[in-house]
Amino acid sequence: MTAHCTAVTAQEIADRTGGRVEGDGSRVVHGVETVDKATPDMLTWVGSPEYASKAAASKAGVILIPLEAEALAEKTVIRVADPDLALCEVLKMLAPPQDVVDPGVHPSAVVGEGAAMDGTAIGPNVFVGEGAVIARGTTLYPGVFVGRGTRIGLDCVLWPNVVVREHVTIGDRVVIHANATIGADGFSYLQREERHVRIPQIGAVVIEDDVEIGANTTIDRARSGATRIRRGTKIDNLVMVAHNCDIGEGSLLAAMTGIAGSTTLGRHVVCGGQAGATDHLNIGDEVQIGAASVALNDIPAGLLIRGVPARELTRFGREQVALKKLPDLLKTIKKLEQRVQKLESERESCV
Amino acid sequence: MTAHCTAVTAQEIADRTGGRVEGDGSRVVHGVETVDKATPDMLTWVGSPEYASKAAASKAGVILIPLEAEALAEKTVIRVADPDLALCEVLKMLAPPQDVVDPGVHPSAVVGEGAAMDGTAIGPNVFVGEGAVIARGTTLYPGVFVGRGTRIGLDCVLWPNVVVREHVTIGDRVVIHANATIGADGFSYLQREERHVRIPQIGAVVIEDDVEIGANTTIDRARSGATRIRRGTKIDNLVMVAHNCDIGEGSLLAAMTGIAGSTTLGRHVVCGGQAGATDHLNIGDEVQIGAASVALNDIPAGLLIRGVPARELTRFGREQVALKKLPDLLKTIKKLEQRVQKLESERESCV
Amino acid sequence: MTAHCTAVTAQEIADRTGGRVEGDGSRVVHGVETVDKATPDMLTWVGSPEYASKAAASKAGVILIPLEAEALAEKTVIRVADPDLALCEVLKMLAPPQDVVDPGVHPSAVVGEGAAMDGTAIGPNVFVGEGAVIARGTTLYPGVFVGRGTRIGLDCVLWPNVVVREHVTIGDRVVIHANATIGADGFSYLQREERHVRIPQIGAVVIEDDVEIGANTTIDRARSGATRIRRGTKIDNLVMVAHNCDIGEGSLLAAMTGIAGSTTLGRHVVCGGQAGATDHLNIGDEVQIGAASVALNDIPAGLLIRGVPARELTRFGREQVALKKLPDLLKTIKKLEQRVQKLESERESCV
Repeated sequence: MTAHCTAVTAQEIADRTGGRVEGDGSRVVHGVETVDKATPDMLTWVGSPEYASKAAASKAGVILIPLEAEALAEKTVIRVADPDLALCEVLKMLAPPQDVVDPGVHPSAVVGEGAAMDGTAIGPNVFVGEGAVIARGTTLYPGVFVGRGTRIGLDCVLWPNVVVREHVTIGDRVVIHANATIGADGFSYLQREERHVRIPQIGAVVIEDDVEIGANTTIDRARSGATRIRRGTKIDNLVMVAHNCDIGEGSLLAAMTGIAGSTTLGRHVVCGGQAGATDHLNIGDEVQIGAASVALNDIPAGLLIRGVPARELTRFGREQVALKKLPDLLKTIKKLEQRVQKLESERESCV
Repeated sequence: MTAHCTAVTAQEIADRTGGRVEGDGSRVVHGVETVDKATPDMLTWVGSPEYASKAAASKAGVILIPLEAEALAEKTVIRVADPDLALCEVLKMLAPPQDVVDPGVHPSAVVGEGAAMDGTAIGPNVFVGEGAVIARGTTLYPGVFVGRGTRIGLDCVLWPNVVVREHVTIGDRVVIHANATIGADGFSYLQREERHVRIPQIGAVVIEDDVEIGANTTIDRARSGATRIRRGTKIDNLVMVAHNCDIGEGSLLAAMTGIAGSTTLGRHVVCGGQAGATDHLNIGDEVQIGAASVALNDIPAGLLIRGVPARELTRFGREQVALKKLPDLLKTIKKLEQRVQKLESERESCV
Repeated sequence: MTAHCTAVTAQEIADRTGGRVEGDGSRVVHGVETVDKATPDMLTWVGSPEYASKAAASKAGVILIPLEAEALAEKTVIRVADPDLALCEVLKMLAPPQDVVDPGVHPSAVVGEGAAMDGTAIGPNVFVGEGAVIARGTTLYPGVFVGRGTRIGLDCVLWPNVVVREHVTIGDRVVIHANATIGADGFSYLQREERHVRIPQIGAVVIEDDVEIGANTTIDRARSGATRIRRGTKIDNLVMVAHNCDIGEGSLLAAMTGIAGSTTLGRHVVCGGQAGATDHLNIGDEVQIGAASVALNDIPAGLLIRGVPARELTRFGREQVALKKLPDLLKTIKKLEQRVQKLESERESCV
């Protein structure tokens, strides 16, 4: 499965991660797996000292462990300060080569007048509109469309067939995965005599630094002003962010999340898969919307919510437990009515 | 944010919208915002007379107001018959330039035998299949695919990387946003000895006049006959319309709505975000399916429905209120049982 | 609607399907419809003998019936062993021509060093990365991207603008519909000091033989190892399969299904539209997850589940029935409390 990966030795990993090898530094791995699934040609890792003993039973060839973990006899281990972070480095070392877009502009690319693209790599069949500005270190894979006047920052990657329409602003180190669409017109109409009249969407999309946007995700442009994705936010595949939304810093939107028009998410909001929020809402900082849960009202900061309409997790949980008992409860109440009926009729006869 | 927009004066706006300026006709705006957010370089608008006083406190440089609204002293206003509709005109005036596809066929486009495309603008790297017919005034942005025998009407716009497969019929003034897929094979198999045998999908998709289809939306072709999107219907991003569906005139399908195979929607149906309907259903005229709600049965005309399975809104609301009380109700009933028990045992001892 | 279809005679159909004509073998049809909708120029079909009488009233020109069905006087029928399967053959006969990609490599395609593509049809503006291997009989429609080192088997079809990134393995007879994305990076981050650190995704995607993948669907690559779609599984449009998932043989995932990271589906699992499963779950063989239902826990083999969280269908159904009664139940209980109260106070006064 990972035959395409590079092979590296324990010592090379220690050198790169600032770690210390105990055991055989020449041991070679060419993949990474969890403790229970790793084979002898793989590396595994233990996030915290108390799990180190569990790793002792793993078949992994090399194990990343925390500095303070006890020794694992007969194993090749690498002690590091932060095994999870070190793992990221190992993954980079093992990574098989990706497609490289040659520096410059591929002859099949079509570039509009006044577009500026120094130090970029523009792949085959890319389209860059008039006056677009793409900064140094940015790569556009084949089939990407960048509209007129759009600005893209340093060291970005736009994977194949991404469409970024006109007058969008993208910061530095932004990654946009294949087939995503940024800047389509917001879904916004006026109803007049049974006809839906298009409200022009003349605003922009602003995507700040260090944002990542998943494959086939769509982020619509604003009516006026901008739809904004703030710094460090990560968005998964097939997500919809509607016109005039404002997604706070460091948020995480899992796949298939939908945020309707003009809704604001605070900082570090987390949306589970297939989650959502309806339009014109304020979702506070650090709110977590569970998978398949949709906010239909403003949500104060810090709440964990679930369900449709989304409500506090504890309330949702209690309701679910109660709902499970409800069918039997109906019988209990029927019986209770009969018992009361009996008591009443006895009372009658008694009096 | 809107620095890319054009600048226009109050008088120019009045001329275009048939309005009347009160105040400074030379006042310049280059954006549009709601009453509370507008800055002095922006225009705002008031839909009905009773809100005119609220607008008096707005910082907007120019305000669109209805003919019958009271005067706003010290403000530059434009009186118009329909401020919402006038706003659409203003947005068009302010709109920054989009990418223009040159008339004719870009040399990098690949066009099949017998394709007819007079008076169209066919962009770079477009593919047009054999015998396709594309009418005057239609624009195909870069990377669009139009299959064999497909017919596209007048003044349509297909944004970049849209795929319309073979033998699809598209009316006039249809807009299809980037990365949408029209005419993929319906999801339809026959099960034989644990194998799923493909049922060929030889039908078409028919998209009538004035339809708009969102980015990354998919509309599948029919097994036989046609999947049909009727006149004036507007479809948002990431929507799925399955094979053999019939979507009635003037309907609105918000983002992430899914309509399963062979389901019919009546006229002016509204689906909220992440809504849906399962297969082979009839959804009546003017039904409104709430956000994240899915119809699992036929729905009579005019109903507002919510939930999964979707049920009448009032019923859904009453159930939600009751569900909230359910956990406490369990306690009430437990106590009630004890009280009845006590009454019964006392009765016993009494008799 | 089906004017683009070929015309065939009853006798030609009988010859192709191994059937026997009763009536007029020269009768021509050029479309297929259900019994109630078919017109005289169409063929219809009856899956089992007991429905043959219903077909007698159909306006269809030709009717496929099972061998053992009674004769339909005054109708042209074709007796076949398996009418549903024969219908698939008829659909193939009637199918209008699709776009054909010429054998070889279109001059506008860009092919990396060492890529091997004998006996394939590579369309305009396709990109094939270094060292990719594409087997005989496979067609890549315009705008497809195939990444470095990716291997594609025999007789596959990749529809326009599909993106398959690097080091993906695709079996034989796989169909991938337009705008799908295979092998984007999994949504996987480490949180460090309020920043989300990218966990590199160096694994692969493995798609086994006879899989079909819908339009605009996304299947992410694994962190390490592989995301796997097993033999014969069919996936609809706009589906998300996250990193490190393992989807069992012969499963059916309807549109908009979302399977979160590292979840395993057994053999012949069925997901309805907008269904899902959260991460790290085991969904047993032959589990059926209803439309708009999401598994939040492991599910044993064979269960039919519905709701969010998904629970056994019978339990879900009983709960829904009970929930409908709940608002009235609240009133019943209020009254019951009053009656018990009355009994208690009478008791008091009695004693």
